[in-house]
Amino acid sequence: MSVPDPRLSINQATIKHADLATALQVTAAAGVQAIGLWREPVQQVGLATAASMLADSGLRFTTHCRGGFFTAPAGPARRASLDDNRVAIEEAATLAAAGADGSTAVLVLVAGGLPDGSRDLVGARERVRDAIGELAPDAAAAGVTLAIEPLHPMYASDRCVVATLGQALDIAADFDPAVVGVTVDTFHIWWDPDVLAQIERAGRAGRIATYQVCDWKTPLPADVLLGRHYPGDGVIDFGPMTRAVLATGYDRDVEVEIFNEQIWASDPAEVVRRTAVGFGAAVSAHLRP
Amino acid sequence: MSVPDPRLSINQATIKHADLATALQVTAAAGVQAIGLWREPVQQVGLATAASMLADSGLRFTTHCRGGFFTAPAGPARRASLDDNRVAIEEAATLAAAGADGSTAVLVLVAGGLPDGSRDLVGARERVRDAIGELAPDAAAAGVTLAIEPLHPMYASDRCVVATLGQALDIAADFDPAVVGVTVDTFHIWWDPDVLAQIERAGRAGRIATYQVCDWKTPLPADVLLGRHYPGDGVIDFGPMTRAVLATGYDRDVEVEIFNEQIWASDPAEVVRRTAVGFGAAVSAHLRP
Repeated sequence: MSVPDPRLSINQATIKHADLATALQVTAAAGVQAIGLWREPVQQVGLATAASMLADSGLRFTTHCRGGFFTAPAGPARRASLDDNRVAIEEAATLAAAGADGSTAVLVLVAGGLPDGSRDLVGARERVRDAIGELAPDAAAAGVTLAIEPLHPMYASDRCVVATLGQALDIAADFDPAVVGVTVDTFHIWWDPDVLAQIERAGRAGRIATYQVCDWKTPLPADVLLGRHYPGDGVIDFGPMTRAVLATGYDRDVEVEIFNEQIWASDPAEVVRRTAVGFGAAVSAHLRP
Repeated sequence: MSVPDPRLSINQATIKHADLATALQVTAAAGVQAIGLWREPVQQVGLATAASMLADSGLRFTTHCRGGFFTAPAGPARRASLDDNRVAIEEAATLAAAGADGSTAVLVLVAGGLPDGSRDLVGARERVRDAIGELAPDAAAAGVTLAIEPLHPMYASDRCVVATLGQALDIAADFDPAVVGVTVDTFHIWWDPDVLAQIERAGRAGRIATYQVCDWKTPLPADVLLGRHYPGDGVIDFGPMTRAVLATGYDRDVEVEIFNEQIWASDPAEVVRRTAVGFGAAVSAHLRP
C-alpha cells in the first residue's frame, strides 16, 4: 500500500456513518496524518472524551464542522444559533489543542439559507455579516478562526446565501484575518470564472483558513447535496486551483470532504484508502513546489 | 379574465409539448402579445410556413431559442455546430421579420458544457469566444443579435460553461453590441451577489438583448434542468432585478421560460393563463416606471 500524502486530511463527513472512535482509527490506520471533525459525533461522546480520543490518535486536527446557520431575523432562533456557534467555537479550540502538532483551530461556517417564506436575499446576507460580527470576539478570545464557506450557488436559497469566494472575502474583510477567514472548497467554486483571482486575493489577505478538495460530476443525484466525488472521479481540474492556493503560501493540510450516499454506504477503512489514492493521483502533484 | 401584461412574452418552452400552431393560438387567445420560439417546432413545419403562421398570429417575436453548444475542439463536430448556428441565425432573422411590429431578432446562445472526457474549463470558455467571433459576421449581416445566456453554475460542466452575467459580458465586450448581447434570466443569476451591478453594466454597454423571468424553488427536482417555476411560486424577489433592467432603458418584452414537467403536462392554454397571472402579480408592478 502506498503512503498517503502527508498533507491529506480526512474530513469526517466523508465517512459519515462511522462514529468518532472508528473515524479516528481508520484514518490513522491508513497512514493519514490529519482529520477534520463534525460536531455531532464529537458531542455524542462528549467534548472532553473526544479531545482525549483525538490526542490518543496522534492525528492533527484540521477543522471543526460546522457553525453558521445564522440567517434568521432577530429573535430567539437567532440568539439560539449564536449561542450554539459559541459552543462550536469552544469545541474547535479544545480539539485543536488536543490534536497533534500542526493542528489548526478552524470552525467552518455555512451561512444558512433564506428564512422560511422570505425572499430577502440581501437581508439574509447582511445578517450573516452581523452574526460574524457578534461571534468574532468569542472566536478571537478562543484563538479560533471562523472560516466562511461559500457554497455552490445551487444551495443559495436553502443552505448558504454566501455563494462565491469573492462574497465570502467581502464579508471577511471587515475582520482580523486571524479571526475570520474563508474555506476554499473546489466543489463549490470550481465553476467560477473568477476563482483563481479570488484565491490569490484570499491569500493576499491572509484569509485561507482551510483548503478542501472533492470532485464534481453530472448528472447530479436526486439530492443535490450528495453529488460530491473522490478527487479524480469528476471533471474538476485540481491543478490550477491547488497551485493558486499553494502560491499564496498556504502550508496547512488539505481536507477531502465528500457527501455521497454510495461512499457513505462503503466500509470506512476502504473509503479512507480510496480517498488517499484519489488524492494522491489528482491533487498531490500540485502540492509539490 | 384580466388582461395580460402588454410586455409579457411566452417562451415556447413553457408549453413545450404544444406544436407551433397550438403555441401561437393559445398565446394570442390569452391576450398575450408576444412569443419566443424554439427551433424544433419551427423546423417541424418549415421556416417559411412558421414565418407565415407567426405573421398570421399577430404576435411579436421576441427570441429564437437556441443556438450555441459550440465548446467542441476544432474538427467536424465544431464545424457542424457553427453551420447549424448559421441556420439558426437565418431562422431568427426570418421570424423577426414576420412578427408584428416591435419584434426583435435575437438568437439565444447556450454555450455548451465540457466536451466528453475534458476537464479544460478554460479552454472550453475560449472556444465559446472563438465561436462567437466566427458567427458574429453572419449575425451582423442578418441583423440578428446573438444573446449569450449565462446559465446557473449547476449547469457549468454539462450544459453551459458561461456561468455568470459578468462572464457573458466579458465575452460580449469584444463585439459590437448590436451583434452580441446577453440574455438576462432571473433563474440563472438571482443568487449572484454581483447581479445588480452586472445588470447595470450590461445596460451601460447596450447588451441586454432579452430579459427573461421565472422562479427558483427548492428542493430541486431529480432532473435539475426542470426546476423552473411560475413567477411568484418561488423565492426570487423580482423587484430589484426587474427595476435594474428597466433602469438601463430596456423597453422590450419580457419572456417567461419555464422548464417543468408538471407545467409541461398541463393544458397549454391554462399554462399561458397561469403564466400571465403569475407575471402580473410578481413582475408587472416593477415594469412600471
